Amino acid sequence: MSQPAAAPATSLQDIISHAKEYGFVFPSSEIYDGLQAVYDYGQNGVELKNNLKTAWWKAMTQLHDNIVGIDAAIFMHPLTWKASGHVDGFNDPMIDNKDSKKRYRADQLLEGKAEEYTKAGETEKAQNLLNEMGRLLGAEDLEGVRNLIISENIVCPISKTLNWTEVRQFNLMFSTQVGSVAEDSSLIYLRPETAQGIFVNFLNVQKSGRMKVPFGIAQIGKAFRNEIVARQFIFRMREFEQMEMQFFIRPDTSQHWYNSWKETRLKFHKAIGLPAEKLKYHDHEKLAHYASAAVDIEFEFPFGFREIEGIHARGDFDLRNHQELSKKKQQYFDADLDENGKPYGNYIPHVVETSVGADRLFLATFCNAFTKETIPSNEEGKEDKERVYLKLHPALAPIKAAVLPLVKKDGLAEKGEAIANSLKSSFRTVYDDGGAIGKRYTRQDLIGTPFCIAVDYQTMEDDTVTIRHRDSMTQERVSISELKEKIGYAVSMERILEAI
Amino acid sequence: MSQPAAAPATSLQDIISHAKEYGFVFPSSEIYDGLQAVYDYGQNGVELKNNLKTAWWKAMTQLHDNIVGIDAAIFMHPLTWKASGHVDGFNDPMIDNKDSKKRYRADQLLEGKAEEYTKAGETEKAQNLLNEMGRLLGAEDLEGVRNLIISENIVCPISKTLNWTEVRQFNLMFSTQVGSVAEDSSLIYLRPETAQGIFVNFLNVQKSGRMKVPFGIAQIGKAFRNEIVARQFIFRMREFEQMEMQFFIRPDTSQHWYNSWKETRLKFHKAIGLPAEKLKYHDHEKLAHYASAAVDIEFEFPFGFREIEGIHARGDFDLRNHQELSKKKQQYFDADLDENGKPYGNYIPHVVETSVGADRLFLATFCNAFTKETIPSNEEGKEDKERVYLKLHPALAPIKAAVLPLVKKDGLAEKGEAIANSLKSSFRTVYDDGGAIGKRYTRQDLIGTPFCIAVDYQTMEDDTVTIRHRDSMTQERVSISELKEKIGYAVSMERILEAI
Repeated sequence: MSQPAAAPATSLQDIISHAKEYGFVFPSSEIYDGLQAVYDYGQNGVELKNNLKTAWWKAMTQLHDNIVGIDAAIFMHPLTWKASGHVDGFNDPMIDNKDSKKRYRADQLLEGKAEEYTKAGETEKAQNLLNEMGRLLGAEDLEGVRNLIISENIVCPISKTLNWTEVRQFNLMFSTQVGSVAEDSSLIYLRPETAQGIFVNFLNVQKSGRMKVPFGIAQIGKAFRNEIVARQFIFRMREFEQMEMQFFIRPDTSQHWYNSWKETRLKFHKAIGLPAEKLKYHDHEKLAHYASAAVDIEFEFPFGFREIEGIHARGDFDLRNHQELSKKKQQYFDADLDENGKPYGNYIPHVVETSVGADRLFLATFCNAFTKETIPSNEEGKEDKERVYLKLHPALAPIKAAVLPLVKKDGLAEKGEAIANSLKSSFRTVYDDGGAIGKRYTRQDLIGTPFCIAVDYQTMEDDTVTIRHRDSMTQERVSISELKEKIGYAVSMERILEAI
Repeated sequence: MSQPAAAPATSLQDIISHAKEYGFVFPSSEIYDGLQAVYDYGQNGVELKNNLKTAWWKAMTQLHDNIVGIDAAIFMHPLTWKASGHVDGFNDPMIDNKDSKKRYRADQLLEGKAEEYTKAGETEKAQNLLNEMGRLLGAEDLEGVRNLIISENIVCPISKTLNWTEVRQFNLMFSTQVGSVAEDSSLIYLRPETAQGIFVNFLNVQKSGRMKVPFGIAQIGKAFRNEIVARQFIFRMREFEQMEMQFFIRPDTSQHWYNSWKETRLKFHKAIGLPAEKLKYHDHEKLAHYASAAVDIEFEFPFGFREIEGIHARGDFDLRNHQELSKKKQQYFDADLDENGKPYGNYIPHVVETSVGADRLFLATFCNAFTKETIPSNEEGKEDKERVYLKLHPALAPIKAAVLPLVKKDGLAEKGEAIANSLKSSFRTVYDDGGAIGKRYTRQDLIGTPFCIAVDYQTMEDDTVTIRHRDSMTQERVSISELKEKIGYAVSMERILEAI
């Protein structure tokens, strides 16, 4: 057999189809024709996603004595979002075309125009346009933004007209009423980020956990944003999941910890199997007003390099605002001694944040694992074969092992079931006796099962089986009694943790 | 030393205080004076809750080849809740007292009155009242309900008056607007139960997973109900988490599977450490109109026996309604042969549901683990000691092992840290060298750490340590090289799975 050859590049459509067909991601409420920008994880997707969440969680809270987790509710007191700036500032400027009735983000229309200039070599024109847009948005001059769109002759891609409405700010937070309909009800928001659940619990955790700066609080949870233009499958959804860690530090150590977390987090992505050449840092040029440094870790998706994680030096912006609004001191007393031998004393800690999109990490892992190979035939008259499989890290695979009897008769089925049952309490093992064994290998390849255990006639004689390895398709003969330990370690989270 | 004696019964207030002080459960947004009926899980609470969720998840999807998981979004198409009956029928009848301005559930006022009758021995009067209430509510005669309250002379507990408003139906679903503010926005709900996420994905999972009836779909996720009267700590919250499994079956096997799941689920609760005498079945007398049988598994909380899980034979109610509303066939073709040798053919499967409240299971586990012991002193002049510890199943404990050097000097600290680091990738291990060793044992007892590893001078000579067992406080000397395997198995989820 010749070596497998690389097939053409994978498209996002390949990914979406495979995800649906093999139970990874379904459109939400599909029997009702779906809900825009919302997706459900299927039977294999939920396992992959849970495994990614577990890997992140353990990498944070198990490998570090000074990082602990929390799970704050989605519902929070509305003042939280006043303090964080989301009530006043979490807006997108939007504009409608009166002819097509289509809605756009005004800033994205202008950025698109700037990109056209850049492609045409007119980089100065592009830069001037972006500067002017920044100035107008900063000054909240929405009429100015509209005028700029018209003077730049930016037409609606559908209607091709300049018949634009005014520009309006649109808050991206979802709101709902809590309490019954009368006087005691109040407006609350679905959290647009999980970070604030950590900040409002800073002192509760610090005191009850006797935490000493530097220390971190990690959290995994849902967040919600009413995106005007949601797109690219699960990359930008209205309901999504974040994995965030806020690291509380002495103010003068901010640069040190920013650099340190930047490195540590990249290592994590490599440890779960994302290759170095598909990962890169992207420094933010424009910083949020509270940030002193910010970088994205980007992954190369089929649609280009895009953010999967952000690392931000947030200063004391959040804790200070909560202190002001709540009138509750958000201070830490640092008994460590400075260079003059005096305790550092009371301060509001600064924060370095690491924030991963769990759904984006899922998509990155899935895209990276999706492998199409052409296996050239060596026999005359036979056609080359195509093989599709998911090259997932074994610790992330939805199913760890499949037990496949060669045939159903002569006791092989019963033997196979007994083997599967003996492994089940250790790791997720399925039994499959339906159809030709080649087809059954293929079924497991398509969902990324790393090990197939074949039960054959020799098994009945000497209690050995073959293990077939997913990526190499090589087989090895091992004793049944070795299976639990051999596969158990290969598929364990410990392997990821040890690689970080 | 004499045997520890049992201390007085634990109150809910003991539980709430301990949960807050030791980082298990905090009031939500506490710096803003909290948000009613919403709570956050702290650094130890999140680990305990995650461990409970993992135990349930593995018990469902790992022990059973024919049960798979999904993770459907909280946002669903609004027609879902039309089909499920929640838009029209998920209401509580409420009434306000005009003098106290307090709001009550009308049915609960009447039930309270019936309970008074029962306590007074007037059981017939009580039964008549409940029957009449059922009749009025069934006929949606809300004026009749109000008149009944007045004729029964039920006064407001605060104002002691009969000055009641009319009775109104109040839908318990939270709603929000999705899409931007203009014509394309639409009202959607926060799901009031996770079950429907399973039903709308029934065919997606069945087809992509090649599932054969009987099979189950499991899900863990948040649900939201705008409870008028939320209470009893995390027992009834407005935001809560469910662990539900819908088991799809041939219609004529409903009773068999109902009985089977009733047994299996009770075993689970025992396997995670809830004692048989604190668990009981409670059969529903009044069934929902779609149910053919329903039972609760109740746990004895400090406030009495209350539901932690429900097992319901739901028939084909949900799938049939979704089929009608979506016009998409929700059928399964069963190729198995009946007693006449013919395939069972096409049918809408019936469903047996098992539904656990994750927060309630957390509360049950926490209440059960909370242990106060008086340890009588045997020395004259010394007082008896009180010990509080959490008797959690080791696989559920937030921290599995704590490494404690006897003193900080002579290399014991470094040795201790090295031991802790060598265990960290296997299970959650902390290192603590702050304060007297007795205090450090107590700190671990209070959060339920099953194993404390003490590093002493002998350790420096022969690489052995003592393991101190939480419940018995006995110590044993073991070699450092044995720790990973010895503790690793004791704290593993496998131990729970093997006990089911």
